[in-house]
Amino acid sequence: METLIGQKVHHFLRRGIFFSHRDLHLILKRYEEKKPFFLYTGRGPSSSALHLGHLIPFFFTRWLQEAFNVPLIIQMTDDEKYLWKDLTIEKTKELTKENIKDIIAMGFDVNKTFIFSDLSFIGKCPEFYENIIRVQRSVTFNQVKGIFGFGDSDCIGKISFPAIQAAPSFSSSFPFIFNGKKDIPALIPCAIDQDPYFRMTRDVAPRLSLPKPALLHSSFLPALTGAQTKMSASDPNNSIFLTDTPNQIKNKINRYAFSGGGATIDEHRANGGNCDIDIAFQYMNFFLEDDNRLEQIRSEYSSGQLLTGDLKKELIGILQTIVAQHQERRKAVTDEVVEQFMSLRKLNL
Amino acid sequence: METLIGQKVHHFLRRGIFFSHRDLHLILKRYEEKKPFFLYTGRGPSSSALHLGHLIPFFFTRWLQEAFNVPLIIQMTDDEKYLWKDLTIEKTKELTKENIKDIIAMGFDVNKTFIFSDLSFIGKCPEFYENIIRVQRSVTFNQVKGIFGFGDSDCIGKISFPAIQAAPSFSSSFPFIFNGKKDIPALIPCAIDQDPYFRMTRDVAPRLSLPKPALLHSSFLPALTGAQTKMSASDPNNSIFLTDTPNQIKNKINRYAFSGGGATIDEHRANGGNCDIDIAFQYMNFFLEDDNRLEQIRSEYSSGQLLTGDLKKELIGILQTIVAQHQERRKAVTDEVVEQFMSLRKLNL
Repeated sequence: METLIGQKVHHFLRRGIFFSHRDLHLILKRYEEKKPFFLYTGRGPSSSALHLGHLIPFFFTRWLQEAFNVPLIIQMTDDEKYLWKDLTIEKTKELTKENIKDIIAMGFDVNKTFIFSDLSFIGKCPEFYENIIRVQRSVTFNQVKGIFGFGDSDCIGKISFPAIQAAPSFSSSFPFIFNGKKDIPALIPCAIDQDPYFRMTRDVAPRLSLPKPALLHSSFLPALTGAQTKMSASDPNNSIFLTDTPNQIKNKINRYAFSGGGATIDEHRANGGNCDIDIAFQYMNFFLEDDNRLEQIRSEYSSGQLLTGDLKKELIGILQTIVAQHQERRKAVTDEVVEQFMSLRKLNL
Repeated sequence: METLIGQKVHHFLRRGIFFSHRDLHLILKRYEEKKPFFLYTGRGPSSSALHLGHLIPFFFTRWLQEAFNVPLIIQMTDDEKYLWKDLTIEKTKELTKENIKDIIAMGFDVNKTFIFSDLSFIGKCPEFYENIIRVQRSVTFNQVKGIFGFGDSDCIGKISFPAIQAAPSFSSSFPFIFNGKKDIPALIPCAIDQDPYFRMTRDVAPRLSLPKPALLHSSFLPALTGAQTKMSASDPNNSIFLTDTPNQIKNKINRYAFSGGGATIDEHRANGGNCDIDIAFQYMNFFLEDDNRLEQIRSEYSSGQLLTGDLKKELIGILQTIVAQHQERRKAVTDEVVEQFMSLRKLNL
């Protein structure tokens, strides 16, 4: 990839945070042959406040878009959240708008990016519904039962929803962007838990004479209290939100971030810290771009030279900067900007 | 009903062809109180040629619309046919357009009638999709399994489809007609086999704080060869199509229409004919409006005075007229007229 794009790949790739793929080589081959592809990713807007973990696929997607100069489509599955959560449609729409503002604030280029929510876009684009119904005809209840674990007491909306996440994988769902072309494949950067949707999509695509989407999977940002669980919006003390103040970030890291250091300073100096379980170090791995500095920290922390407090202090600074910059950019995202990103239009590339 | 509308009711009601209902009295009470309601019916466009049986709900719906002067909404479930039949989306759209032309030719008033197809309308009206997803959240696989007999190997499109037939029962699905009002109930004239969809809808409505639709059910026009089966588009010799020539109608009735008459003329004169099983008489019951003439035929045929040949001859004349008039009206239905009926607009009432 570095040869093709003439630059170093993103540290999420270098460090194996995006750790697996399907058919990425086919996308790279297309790029080499100057054939088009597009990026597709998404979010289910179930809470108004995003946390640091939500940045991972979007930061990486932004980088991919810049490196390859390709159209990006972002799906907000507000219908999914309505089906799964105890929310009204009105509340779901509110959350969606707030989430879109956060996503835009991550730095996407309005000239190359189309953001849509299912509840609004399905009612605007018949070609999208056609692809949904094509997928719905090609997948049985048995299959979604096997893939997603649906049962007989699940509502029929959940059962048919996977088709709605599948359909944006096909360029023909967006005739206003791709001029009705059906054969432009998608590359989907997403967290690994979304893979079942796209295994299903890849299974269906050939039967519909449509190209299989390629995938790039990320691992999860661990929760503050340890690497066993992923960061989750439902547990405020286990997560750092994009709305947190510098002080909240400082306090959460200092109080809750699980330490791989020694029980006492003496012990730490003697045996060193364990980077593999230390949450502050894990977060550095995600958010400190400088490879040399990261290796220095790994070495000094492992040897015991660097204390947990020092490590946390540096991390706090990094995260405070990222969150403050995000909050600053988000202030500039007005309703009008949201409308621009969501309007059905050609993209400039 | 006759007191309310100041005229005799349609012979389909007088003769029990529309033979059962749900909550019709509530609709009539609203009419008496000058509160609004609307009519909703539909068709699944699985074949290009409609037959006489297809006229029944539409003829009656047209009469209801005229008698009560209310908006009428006609749903073409092209997505359903795509899901159930071995058709492409393109072919389904063709059939839909042909069927819409036949429906318009039945005499609907463009100022009071909105016709839509799912494949096109879902992509034009977010409020419709919102109601679909509301119903989809309120119905489980267990329920549709019980109501429609779906199994684990059915595609997920079929499983969630009943919500798409349910959603037009609610005025909030058509904000451009009802100004966003949610509380205007529907009266649905339909063949009895569609009742399961609307029992489901009536079950769901209160949970969505939406009004239950009322229903009027028709029996089926029997096939030519006998009252055991309904007329079906898949068996040309068992059906009379709206595209048949006068000669085809004559030949089909003479050759295939099951006779309740005697085996010989002598036997017929002695014992009379059996109107209950005689298909020509059954068709008269559907298509001969004149009650007195119908009773005269019943009496003369039952007594043996009127022969099967005479009965068939009169029926042939009636059906040739109905079909010829339909064909004449259909010629006037251009693509522009179809567009008028399908455009999203206020209705004039």
